[in-house]
Amino acid sequence: MLSRIGVHTSVDVLFPPSVLRDALSDVEPTVEIVETAADLDECDALVTFSYDESFLDADLDWIHSIQSGVDRFPFDRLERRGIALTSSTGIHGDSVGETVVGYMLQFARRLHVHRDNERRREWQFPPWDAPFTLPGESLCVVGLGTLGQGIARRADALGVDVVGVKRTPTPVEHISRVYTPGELQEAIADVRFVAVAVPLTDRTEGSIGADEFGVMREDAYLLNVSRGGVVDDSALLDALRDDELAGAALDVFETEPLPDRSEFWERENVIVTPHAAAANREYYRRVGALVRENVRRLDANETLANHVV
Amino acid sequence: MLSRIGVHTSVDVLFPPSVLRDALSDVEPTVEIVETAADLDECDALVTFSYDESFLDADLDWIHSIQSGVDRFPFDRLERRGIALTSSTGIHGDSVGETVVGYMLQFARRLHVHRDNERRREWQFPPWDAPFTLPGESLCVVGLGTLGQGIARRADALGVDVVGVKRTPTPVEHISRVYTPGELQEAIADVRFVAVAVPLTDRTEGSIGADEFGVMREDAYLLNVSRGGVVDDSALLDALRDDELAGAALDVFETEPLPDRSEFWERENVIVTPHAAAANREYYRRVGALVRENVRRLDANETLANHVV
Ligand SMILES: NC(=O)c1ccc[n+]([C@@H]2O[C@H](COP(=O)([O-])OP(=O)(O)OC[C@H]3O[C@@H](n4cnc5c(N)ncnc54)[C@H](O)[C@@H]3O)[C@@H](O)[C@H]2O)c1
Ligand SMILES: NC(=O)c1ccc[n+]([C@@H]2O[C@H](COP(=O)([O-])OP(=O)(O)OC[C@H]3O[C@@H](n4cnc5c(N)ncnc54)[C@H](O)[C@@H]3O)[C@@H](O)[C@H]2O)c1
Repeated sequence: MLSRIGVHTSVDVLFPPSVLRDALSDVEPTVEIVETAADLDECDALVTFSYDESFLDADLDWIHSIQSGVDRFPFDRLERRGIALTSSTGIHGDSVGETVVGYMLQFARRLHVHRDNERRREWQFPPWDAPFTLPGESLCVVGLGTLGQGIARRADALGVDVVGVKRTPTPVEHISRVYTPGELQEAIADVRFVAVAVPLTDRTEGSIGADEFGVMREDAYLLNVSRGGVVDDSALLDALRDDELAGAALDVFETEPLPDRSEFWERENVIVTPHAAAANREYYRRVGALVRENVRRLDANETLANHVV
Repeated sequence: MLSRIGVHTSVDVLFPPSVLRDALSDVEPTVEIVETAADLDECDALVTFSYDESFLDADLDWIHSIQSGVDRFPFDRLERRGIALTSSTGIHGDSVGETVVGYMLQFARRLHVHRDNERRREWQFPPWDAPFTLPGESLCVVGLGTLGQGIARRADALGVDVVGVKRTPTPVEHISRVYTPGELQEAIADVRFVAVAVPLTDRTEGSIGADEFGVMREDAYLLNVSRGGVVDDSALLDALRDDELAGAALDVFETEPLPDRSEFWERENVIVTPHAAAANREYYRRVGALVRENVRRLDANETLANHVV
């Protein structure tokens, strides 16, 4: 039975710590906002955005990551200390799915360029052969978990032919053809859009690089909402400079915040969003629901939801 | 039987005249690009974007508008001269439908603001309670013709509850409730988005004005892809200034091009597009198909498709 859950102030990146604390006012353990290592000593569980070494030395039983991706956590060391880690996967299918079809519509309908022109007070019809519509176009979603399925469902609903890459190539709703990771290049060679939605792991790191841009169509757009590091950013810039690709929409980067000098900022057909694809005023409620469920499971001695280690 | 169809150089706003001429190379009449009143004398039909008084004095049997809206044509005088007028309605449901859901996603996912920040090289997460997702939100589509249905279908597919305003309030696919024009204010009072898709007529001119903004929700967005003049632009600016509305996406204006001094350009939550909601590299092909069909009908003495007068 937990006695005290800390809400780490780092959650502030996504919502004020107090709204999550208040949303959890109905759980049995005390819920408190914690900032320093000293505050941590009183807690047996922690809900956090960032990872800090001090978490290992506190007497925690459980850490819950408010992000789906947990690549910043040291799995081995947590396991050795007997600290359970849970993630927030499962809650971003709609928000990220909408962001990705939003990117696709910006490119198809030229909405990003219209916005640039608006800011310059310029009334400028696009080149006649630039705008297009989505039906008849194709998308490959790499990784068919929560994000991948949220993207696929919405693109399919807008008439896009969707294929996907999945470790176990069993059929998936909204996906007309499923490829294995070994067939990645074949999967992305003939599509107009490639959306990347895999976690950052040893296997996925750098998996979208020069070779992949080489096989993609010249009129293709890369959409990355997974993690910086999955895509090789400097190879991507090379491919964009050499017109090997038509453009990219990027929410995540090898270095975040994206450095001021990055060439990604200035390219017309690169859409940069600040790791905000999942941003949602309902975010804290969903994290609250995950935490509440795991408080119940811990108490009942059941396996934790979204258990990582 | 027609002998010569002119393609007026004004179509250049939407595509090069030559691509339409070439797409019509298979029809019986000669198809030629025409620019001056003198060129017109040889034609018995004209495909055009703009209207010019000289069209009345030429010996034309038929004018085809490459736009869906034909409010710029003098119906009475064309009728008196025995010149048939046809429009390009029916071909913009997908392009405009996608543009409108693109606007909705820009507002929901803050993509327009991310673009502004990108241009300033600013990595800035949105206020935590600004981004939202579409399911659970509602849209009222005013006018359920080609555009209205194209918008409704796509918004419904993304989980939005869609209601609509229609002269004859019979059930329509994707629309959960149909209102009459007399119930306009009731129809728009409780929704998050209002999309305007009626033609400009005596009845619709100024029909979205101060009273309508007064009944709309303060967190509502107005989306206008119909015609300037349907919406009262100065009342809209007042409503935006007074925070009676959350924002607007506008493709059409009382004065086009939008004057340099217009306040619409500079408001963060106003998205301006340059009457390009229907822009599409396939536009000329679709106009070509309409013209080809009506050449056949004229020859067969059948009623013209999209006949206006
Ligand atoms: N941009 C954002 O704001 C944001 C938000 C949520 C998640 N993410 C990132 O996206 C990742 C996915 O999130 P999710 O919630 O969908 O996680 P998830 O666990 O639901 O899905 C990930 C999927 O990727 C698959 N996968 C793993 N390795 C693969 C490979 N080599 N090839 C193909 N598929 C592979 C897994 O089997 C799983 O189905 C997260 O790990 C996180 O890094 C980013
Ligand atoms: N922004 C653009 O690029 C663009 C593109 C195409 C059309 N348009 C404009 O949009 C208008 C609609 O185009 P469309 O192709 O859908 O035409 P359409 O004829 O297919 O549909 C118009 C619909 O509006 C309905 N209507 C008329 N008066 C009404 C009223 N008072 N209340 C409710 N409904 C009413 C009609 O019954 C019809 O169903 C055109 O007239 C044109 O002005 C703009």
